Amino acid sequence: MSANEKKSTHGSCPLPFNHSDVIRLSHGAGGQMTSNLIRDVILRHFGNPILDKLGDSAELHVQNRRLAFTTDSFVVNPLFFPGGNIGDLAVNGTVNDLAVSGARALYLSIGFIIEEGLAVGEFDTIVETMQRAAGAAGVTIVTGDTKVVDHGKGDKIFINTSGIGVFDHDFILDPRHVEPSDVVIVSGPIGNHGIAVLSKREGFSFGTDVVSDTAPLGGLTEALLRACGNRLRVMRDPTRGGIAASLNEFAERAQVEIELDETSLPIDPPVAGACELLGIDPLHVANEGKLVVIVAAELAEEALAALRELEIGREACVIGRVGGKRAPGRVVLRTLLGVRRVVDPPVGEQLPRIC
Amino acid sequence: MSANEKKSTHGSCPLPFNHSDVIRLSHGAGGQMTSNLIRDVILRHFGNPILDKLGDSAELHVQNRRLAFTTDSFVVNPLFFPGGNIGDLAVNGTVNDLAVSGARALYLSIGFIIEEGLAVGEFDTIVETMQRAAGAAGVTIVTGDTKVVDHGKGDKIFINTSGIGVFDHDFILDPRHVEPSDVVIVSGPIGNHGIAVLSKREGFSFGTDVVSDTAPLGGLTEALLRACGNRLRVMRDPTRGGIAASLNEFAERAQVEIELDETSLPIDPPVAGACELLGIDPLHVANEGKLVVIVAAELAEEALAALRELEIGREACVIGRVGGKRAPGRVVLRTLLGVRRVVDPPVGEQLPRIC
Repeated sequence: MSANEKKSTHGSCPLPFNHSDVIRLSHGAGGQMTSNLIRDVILRHFGNPILDKLGDSAELHVQNRRLAFTTDSFVVNPLFFPGGNIGDLAVNGTVNDLAVSGARALYLSIGFIIEEGLAVGEFDTIVETMQRAAGAAGVTIVTGDTKVVDHGKGDKIFINTSGIGVFDHDFILDPRHVEPSDVVIVSGPIGNHGIAVLSKREGFSFGTDVVSDTAPLGGLTEALLRACGNRLRVMRDPTRGGIAASLNEFAERAQVEIELDETSLPIDPPVAGACELLGIDPLHVANEGKLVVIVAAELAEEALAALRELEIGREACVIGRVGGKRAPGRVVLRTLLGVRRVVDPPVGEQLPRIC
Repeated sequence: MSANEKKSTHGSCPLPFNHSDVIRLSHGAGGQMTSNLIRDVILRHFGNPILDKLGDSAELHVQNRRLAFTTDSFVVNPLFFPGGNIGDLAVNGTVNDLAVSGARALYLSIGFIIEEGLAVGEFDTIVETMQRAAGAAGVTIVTGDTKVVDHGKGDKIFINTSGIGVFDHDFILDPRHVEPSDVVIVSGPIGNHGIAVLSKREGFSFGTDVVSDTAPLGGLTEALLRACGNRLRVMRDPTRGGIAASLNEFAERAQVEIELDETSLPIDPPVAGACELLGIDPLHVANEGKLVVIVAAELAEEALAALRELEIGREACVIGRVGGKRAPGRVVLRTLLGVRRVVDPPVGEQLPRIC
């Protein structure tokens, strides 16, 4: 059936896109264009109460057990970058989507789409890296699929990972639970993954090598759940679209304003330098081993202590606060000079294929 | 880490491939080359008791519940072909992997990898088709991911689907349960999907249009389980590599010989004609809505009756028999002339990107 035929079956109901529209890189960048595509095409057809929540993972009830289920495809370019490769990214990415939804990751599936001509040795290295990452995250790779496409019809390798986790508690994490005066915490310096990939891809050098922060977050999320219980409002791993995308989504869903304090943002100097040089806002840059969480103000110290007990949370800090209903749906940054500027969600194509 | 560095960490243990080896289309065709890649790279690193079974889906135990989990990526070229498109293929393919392992499919995840430039209208048609296929199969699409790659770095769209199912019974299906004198049954005519895709791709016309048989198989598999219980040995949806790949795997795992009767093979005349013209063995051609099962001889009539009660199983028939341990691991075909010829597993590149 052609798109034309389909159009006619809708009769008088206009489609939310034009017939000449095509998919652009920005549709995959995690910003506004991605949201539009999800709303106009994907949810328009697939919409159901579980999917509509658009959580990091879907919460399922299977024979009275509460499970988490999630999927992610990885198309990072280049495949190998300082601090990791597409393999650990693919394992940690899905493990982390389960972790930030409050679940404990158990099982992974892996789907390889390989372009003809990839060196078997490179594939072997990626597979070995995935196994090591799975071991570090405590998950088992239980099923898989391998497809090969003609040379020139792929880009070396794409990897899909899907994951199943279980909930060991009854807490419900939801951005709509966010309340005025809650605090925003990040588990460590931001922007490292995006700058590491970009510098490798474009051949930039920023004096010191910036290394991807790819890591499993289950230790941090479980520590936070133990420390804060249901006063932990929501957690997210700010990947595509960075901190800006995650916090704008929280602000929008909770209909609150979130105010960040620029002096508190943890950014490693080489990352800050690279962002300045490239004219990129570090709040828009992808992270792969960081957590951004919102927690009730009275639990902030407990949350920080829980995060800092683990090596990857050692630099955890408060970066902002939920500022009430004055400008609902907005994220603002109070700059070094005390000026308030709006932190927009990323629109799109700034940093494609970062994960 | 480069492949070279990795190599050195293995010290004196030689790698099962050469440094100059590259991935070829045949590695993804479901035949011998695919098996080698899985053994030499994927299982070498990932190997664990669940994955090693290489079932159509993994059997998991989550908090005392028995679940099935599977994944499949779809790279069919062209996207649209007589009888379907990549969308229903992606839903039915994963639903069927759950069904043939004896599970009832419940939930799907979807991962889109879209090449920049795909018409939004075509994407919309594919998504709409997927929703219709999910409804027909009784599964809910609960989570998803969308990535976009640069023009020339993909091929319009690739789709991964992963699925979760439950077991409503205690039977264990396993090719190792196959015994001499068991019968081999197929649920209907073979080869339609492969020839439909191939004819569209290459612009062949075979007089009558051959239409893909893509369909959900849950109705058939549940009827068989009810009719045969644990005397149903094993089921498979013979996709990549066709009936030949499935039966060779059964023969190998059970260490028996399987003898097919050429006069019994159900092949629609246009499919037979196309195979003859192209010099392809119909036993090697992919199916997407067919079931091949092995069942105890005394239950053959019950199995056929159960299959034939459903429209898509109306043409179910016995195509062969398990012939003992004389030539263990072999599939042979008794031809029209009474000659026995070996049915080899497909080696590889004959019909790439058929699903």
